[in-house]
Parts: sequence; C-alpha cells; structure tokens
Amino acid sequence: MAELTHFDDSGNAHMVDVSGKAVTDRLAVAESSVTMTPETLALVVQGTAKKGDVLGVARLAGIMAAKKTADLIPLCHPLPITKVTLDLTPDETLPGVRIRATVKTSGQTGVEMEALTAASIAALTIYDMLKAAEKGMEIGPTRLLRKEGGKSGVYEAGQ
Amino acid sequence: MAELTHFDDSGNAHMVDVSGKAVTDRLAVAESSVTMTPETLALVVQGTAKKGDVLGVARLAGIMAAKKTADLIPLCHPLPITKVTLDLTPDETLPGVRIRATVKTSGQTGVEMEALTAASIAALTIYDMLKAAEKGMEIGPTRLLRKEGGKSGVYEAGQ
Amino acid sequence: MAELTHFDDSGNAHMVDVSGKAVTDRLAVAESSVTMTPETLALVVQGTAKKGDVLGVARLAGIMAAKKTADLIPLCHPLPITKVTLDLTPDETLPGVRIRATVKTSGQTGVEMEALTAASIAALTIYDMLKAAEKGMEIGPTRLLRKEGGKSGVYEAGQ
Amino acid sequence: MAELTHFDDSGNAHMVDVSGKAVTDRLAVAESSVTMTPETLALVVQGTAKKGDVLGVARLAGIMAAKKTADLIPLCHPLPITKVTLDLTPDETLPGVRIRATVKTSGQTGVEMEALTAASIAALTIYDMLKAAEKGMEIGPTRLLRKEGGKSGVYEAGQ
Amino acid sequence: MAELTHFDDSGNAHMVDVSGKAVTDRLAVAESSVTMTPETLALVVQGTAKKGDVLGVARLAGIMAAKKTADLIPLCHPLPITKVTLDLTPDETLPGVRIRATVKTSGQTGVEMEALTAASIAALTIYDMLKAAEKGMEIGPTRLLRKEGGKSGVYEAGQ
Amino acid sequence: MAELTHFDDSGNAHMVDVSGKAVTDRLAVAESSVTMTPETLALVVQGTAKKGDVLGVARLAGIMAAKKTADLIPLCHPLPITKVTLDLTPDETLPGVRIRATVKTSGQTGVEMEALTAASIAALTIYDMLKAAEKGMEIGPTRLLRKEGGKSGVYEAGQ
Repeated sequence: MAELTHFDDSGNAHMVDVSGKAVTDRLAVAESSVTMTPETLALVVQGTAKKGDVLGVARLAGIMAAKKTADLIPLCHPLPITKVTLDLTPDETLPGVRIRATVKTSGQTGVEMEALTAASIAALTIYDMLKAAEKGMEIGPTRLLRKEGGKSGVYEAGQ
Repeated sequence: MAELTHFDDSGNAHMVDVSGKAVTDRLAVAESSVTMTPETLALVVQGTAKKGDVLGVARLAGIMAAKKTADLIPLCHPLPITKVTLDLTPDETLPGVRIRATVKTSGQTGVEMEALTAASIAALTIYDMLKAAEKGMEIGPTRLLRKEGGKSGVYEAGQ
Repeated sequence: MAELTHFDDSGNAHMVDVSGKAVTDRLAVAESSVTMTPETLALVVQGTAKKGDVLGVARLAGIMAAKKTADLIPLCHPLPITKVTLDLTPDETLPGVRIRATVKTSGQTGVEMEALTAASIAALTIYDMLKAAEKGMEIGPTRLLRKEGGKSGVYEAGQ
Repeated sequence: MAELTHFDDSGNAHMVDVSGKAVTDRLAVAESSVTMTPETLALVVQGTAKKGDVLGVARLAGIMAAKKTADLIPLCHPLPITKVTLDLTPDETLPGVRIRATVKTSGQTGVEMEALTAASIAALTIYDMLKAAEKGMEIGPTRLLRKEGGKSGVYEAGQ
Repeated sequence: MAELTHFDDSGNAHMVDVSGKAVTDRLAVAESSVTMTPETLALVVQGTAKKGDVLGVARLAGIMAAKKTADLIPLCHPLPITKVTLDLTPDETLPGVRIRATVKTSGQTGVEMEALTAASIAALTIYDMLKAAEKGMEIGPTRLLRKEGGKSGVYEAGQ
Repeated sequence: MAELTHFDDSGNAHMVDVSGKAVTDRLAVAESSVTMTPETLALVVQGTAKKGDVLGVARLAGIMAAKKTADLIPLCHPLPITKVTLDLTPDETLPGVRIRATVKTSGQTGVEMEALTAASIAALTIYDMLKAAEKGMEIGPTRLLRKEGGKSGVYEAGQ
C-alpha cells in the first residue's frame, strides 16, 4: 500500500525530513482553466487587446502565489524557486481561459505544489476580475501535467 | 454590457472604492472537490478514522487561507472575517473528497473570494498529502454556490 | 462540561461565528519572562544604557508579532488592533527580563492571543539576541494577566 | 566577555554576515509545555481519541510557524528548513501537554530559533483552543534542549 | 515642541492607542517618480502600447503593497483599506515615470503610510523591471501630497 | 537595444529562469535619505542620544523588509540573504537622515532589489515616526550605489 509521507508512524502530521535527498533540477507543469459564457470571455479578449488586462493581472497573481506556496500548504518545504511562467490562453471552445503554470527549482523536493498553487491562484484571480459580469464561472479541472527531477523521475499525465 | 469594476475608465487595474457601500452581513459558500482512485480515497478514509488525518490538515489549511485572501488576490479588499467553516466529505461515487467552504463577515464587500480561496487551498492540501500515492488526482470544478448580502442580494448557483 | 468553541458538533475545527457578538472595547494583558545568568543580564542592562539595545529590538518584534497573530494561530479571528505596548524590565532577582504586553481593540472577539503572542515573540527575540552568550536561558511562564470586554467581563489572574 | 553578534561595533543591530560560514547539517530540539487543570487536560485527551483534535491543530500551527521564524525574529536569517516535527504529549503529572519541536536544515546558521518558535506557537495554539475552558493555563518553561552542527558543535541542555 | 507619538513617556516605542479616536473617512495621496534615460523611458512607453507592460506590473505591486503596510512599518496600525489607485505616467521632461498613489479608508488613523508605501513599491518595481537596461535610475522624491480626515483636517503639500 | 528580461518573447511578464546561472557571492549597496527641517532633525538626534530611538526602529524595519523583498516585488526571485546592514546617519547639511543599506547573499541572482527595498522601508519608517512633527518630509533620491557578483561584474554609481 502506498505510504503517506506527510505522517509519521503514529499518524501525526510532520514536515518530512528531506535533508538526505539529493539536490537535483526540478520542474513541474500544472494546468487549470476557468469556464465562462462566451459573453464573459469576450470581455477578457477585448481587455487583452486594448484595456482592462484581466490576464496580465492573473498572471502576476499566479507568479506571486508560487512564492507563497510553503506559507499556504502546511507541510510543504520552503524552496528557492528559480523560474515561474504562467501561460493564459483564451479558448472559445471551452469557452474560457486555459492556464498553464511552469515552475523550476534546484532543490531536495519537487515543485508540483508550486505549479498547482500558481495555476489555482491565477484562476481565482480571473474569477475575481470577472465576477461582476458572471458569478457562475467554474474553475478546473486543475491537475499536474508533468514533473521532472528527483528519485521518482519523470511523470507525465495521461490524456 | 457588464462592467468590470476592477478597472478604471482608462482600463487600468485598481482596488475599487467601496467606502460609500453599506456595511451589511455577508455570506458566501463555495465548493470544490478532489477526484482520485478508490485506492487513494481508502487512504483518506482510514486516516480520518484512526491516524494520518488528511482531512483535518486540509481543513485547517483552508481556514488559514481564507484569512490570506487579500494577500493572494491582487485587487481584493482586506476584510475582517467573522466565520470560516470547511466541510470535507469523502464520497465514493466521485471517488474523492467533496469540499464546501462557508465564510461570513460584516463589511462593505462580499466574501466570495474568501470562500473560493479556502476551498481551493483545502483541495491543494489534500493533493499534497496524497500525491505520494497518486499524482493524477484532479481538483475541481471549483465554484460559488451561494452569496448573501450587499446590493446584489442573494445569488444561488444552478444545478 | 466546558465547551471547546473551536470545534463544531462533529469535532471538526472551525473559525467560530462571531458575527452575532457585540462590538465592545477589549483589552488583554499578558506576561512572560526570560531567565538567564547574572552575566547575561549584565549584557542586556549595559546595552540599554549605551549600545546594543536588546530590549528595543525585542519590543519592536513583540509589537509586530501582535499584528501577525491571526496568521500564526490557526483559528484566531483577524482583528484591527488599536494599541500594543510592550514593557520589558530587567530584574536581577530572576535574574532576567520581565515582559508585559498590553493590547487593545474594539471588536467582536478578545485580544488575549494577541497579547500572549506579543509577549512570546518578544521573549524569543531576547533569546535570539543573547544566545551567543548563553544557550540555557528559559522562557516563561507565559500567562494571561488580565482581560476586559466581551460577554465574559473582566478576568484577572490569581497570584 | 561574550560578544552579542547581532550588534555591530557601534552597537547598532544588524543581520550578521554568515556568508563565510560553512554549510553544514544543523539540528535543534526545543521544548515547551502548557500547564492546566486535570479537567482541562481531560478535554484534550478525549479530543485526541475521538473528536476535537486540539493537539492536531497545535502540531500544524507549530510546523507552519517554523517556516515563518525569519519573519518574526528580526535579525534571524531566512533558512530552507528540511524537517520539522512536533511531539505533543499529554502528561497527567504536570498536568498538561508537553511539547517537543525538532527542526533540521543544511545551512550556514543554526535552527534554534525555528525550533523554539515552533514550540512556542504550538503552545499558544493549545492555549487558544482551550481558553474557553480555562484562562489560567501557563506556558513554559520553553528552552533549547539540543543543537547540532556549526562551529560550536553539539549543545545539550542540563537537567 | 512637537511630540513623537510613537514613543511613550520613557522613550520606548509603542503602537499608540487610537481606540478613543473617532472613525472618520480618510484619504491620502502620495507621489514618487523614477528618473531614467530617454532610452530606458522609450522601453516603458513601447511596452505600455504593445507588450512588456512595465507600468501594469508596477501598478499591481503598488496596490498589493498598500495592503501590507502594517506588516512593513513597525508601529503602523492595521487598517481595512477601502480604495487604492496608482496613476503611473511616463513623462519625457523628467525623463521617467511619475507615480501617484491614492488610498482611502474609514478608520481611526490616517492612510499616509499606505499611500507612501504604495508609491514606493511601485517605484521599486519599475526599477526592477528596467534594471537590465539601466542601473543608474533614481527613485524619488517621494512625498505626501494630500491628507484628509481625522482631527488634524486637510493637509496639502506646497509646491 | 536593451532587453527587458522580466518579459518573455510575447511580452508577458514571467519570473525569468535563473537555474542555469552560477551561484556566486553577491553584494549590493543602496542609498536613500529623508529630508526634513532642522527642528525635526533635532528630534531624531535627541532620541538617538537619550530616548525615542527613531533610527533604531527604522534600522530594524529596513532589515526585516529586506527579507520580504520577493514578497513585494512581483518578479523578484526568493533569495536566502546572508547579511543586511543599515547605516542611518543624521546629516545637518541636508538637513535629514542619510540611509545606506548593504545586502549580501550567495546565489543565482543579485540583491539590488533587497538593498533598495531595505533603504526605502527604512526611509518610510523614519517618515512614519516623525510625521506628527512634519508632514512635508521628502524621501530620496533612492539609488543603487554598488553591485558585485554575477556575470555583469562590478557596478558602481557615478557621482
């Protein structure tokens, strides 16, 4: 059975000891999305072109949130992130905005949580910017797309 | 056309002036979920009963995140929250964990973002606690269920 | 039997609803102390008089920590503090430094945790400043001295 | 006479230069306790077994506080912590709860302040959870039990 | 002689008691600027029009910083800000960018520090975004332009 | 033409990838100042000598702010700072207070922003401590004096 590393033998939560782990290059890519009506999406697309840059604000929020991950996720190790990129793409087939967050570090633990947090906060920010127009928007699915580095090697999500 | 209140007439982002708004009782309820395999869900259910309390950790993370909302969402007003509740329910039909966050305040703006943030961070924490067992879990859909207070009155999400 | 208000009927932690509580003036006074050798205390006393102001640094740390209480104590409500005072007094009979923190607000919950947090962080800062001289210093007892405001009225600690 | 490294030659506070120090494995263990009546302790023990998990909440608060140490203690260097464990043990002979915090890192300065901060915030959280039942609880003594790594080698507290 | 309200009668720093002050509408306006070469300014102006939106990033940084003022300025009271606006204007006569921050609240203390902090962090962010092009940029003068509300009434800076 | 590294090829803001950069010793020195009337400066000088230590408070605020730089400047990488010094010197020829901040680290990016942030927040804190006496004080010019380490080598500001 899989072991939950965030608990010790007595079942108590702890921040697991990673001091014996090798420092390796780490990368994680996560995705999320915000689904909305075509009318709301039109507000986003206009803004990007001319004014009211919803995606610019959400991008920054996601980048800044990646740096706060260890503050938000209780058992997450603090990590010196070396790169954060947020790709935000309007997609009329959703209709809505697709979010992809890429995070890199060189450290003893992975950056999955940083990438997932960046994508989630970018999505929440998009919701915040557009909620005056539509309260029924939906966020997600949010998931890990790819992970590199560390003992477990490369993980790639299925379709 | 709907107006995006987070931008001024020139299209620049700002924290909108709410000083003229009435102080009213506000409530918001948001939901999210984490979908996983039945095997991973079994780890959660065992923990709740005996040890390795995944849901207890996620509940606290969600409550604490609600208090950090204005720090995470760039144009969100700081608010003195008066209540936060996180209901986390294992659901074998998903299979996974259903999350419901309820936030109250008495203030000049609503607490939708606080409820959505609490639900999102609780979901991310569940992912973090279980990712050693399964990396393919999916978060969402995350959405607003209900909103009370303020000029716009009661909002209730459809099915 | 006393009821633990930080848990709901199912025993789950929550931030309890205070929205129905009256806004009243609140005050709390907490004390702590750092016990050390007479030689270490001499370093403190010299510094206060002339240079190396240990108590000045600890006082500021305590004041700033009071503002972070809701960030540190998971189920604590955020509160707009209206006053924080830290009295730090060298006492040769300990020997060491006596700490007294006073916090005021006008709100729906008390400020005991703010006062206790301010006193505790001031004590930890004194330890930090002096640990090169003595690692065996002891902090405490830390306790609530007085509490005013709210439904439960005035509390005063016994001797 | 012992030198207070947190002050420069003019007696001004500074964050001392550690860039010339070797990166070594560091460990620190600190203890604290919360003393209460047997009736209050009974509330804790019942909760651990069945519902209202006071110690689970305090444990998480301590772990998260360890990550905020450099934010709380003014002259503390930021450090990438690699492990945090909080042992919380009900002890009827106090009566109360004994707290032991263990922190590890690989860095240029020690983690005494991280361990002491984790123990202190866990104690404050226990106080917060139980204060509806008893306001007269006392925290401490809080002290460093053990320190490993760095030029000064192993420190172990006396009895 | 003017009294420094941030110190008590013994000269010790404290967060002054404002609990007796009236809650009034408060406004503060502060200005700053970043002076640079015409070549660097050209990079800013191009970005605003087309891509690489330096001013958009700085505007958000200033808004978010206003919310962190009480965390940065030790003796500042925490305040629920109700409005933040950052006006960033390229000015070829400097040459550089002019910054104006406007903050409002309804509270017991003024928001001068919030406006000055917003302007300062916006300026620092502009520096950060452009420092690859020019390290010799200068920030300031940063000053209070206007203050309304509270017992001292309206303050307006001279020319 | 100079390239703005904080934007990608599409002009979107990102935290640039520094994972390929060498870890080298980094140093940055920044300066700022607060200009005031001779009467206000007299309050500072008296305080330093006897009570009401304005410069002591500002020094600590600057040191603590250096540790928060990555939280304030959106695209700044988090860095483990190894030294922060703040020199605050009353200068009757201004008249006012001169501020010099020195920051060191061993890392993949420079610490200019940390030094500039420390100097700026120290200046803002001086303003806050003295604003009851004089609202017309001016902060700046704030600028980088020196930078060492990294591929670009030594930078020294002109007169």
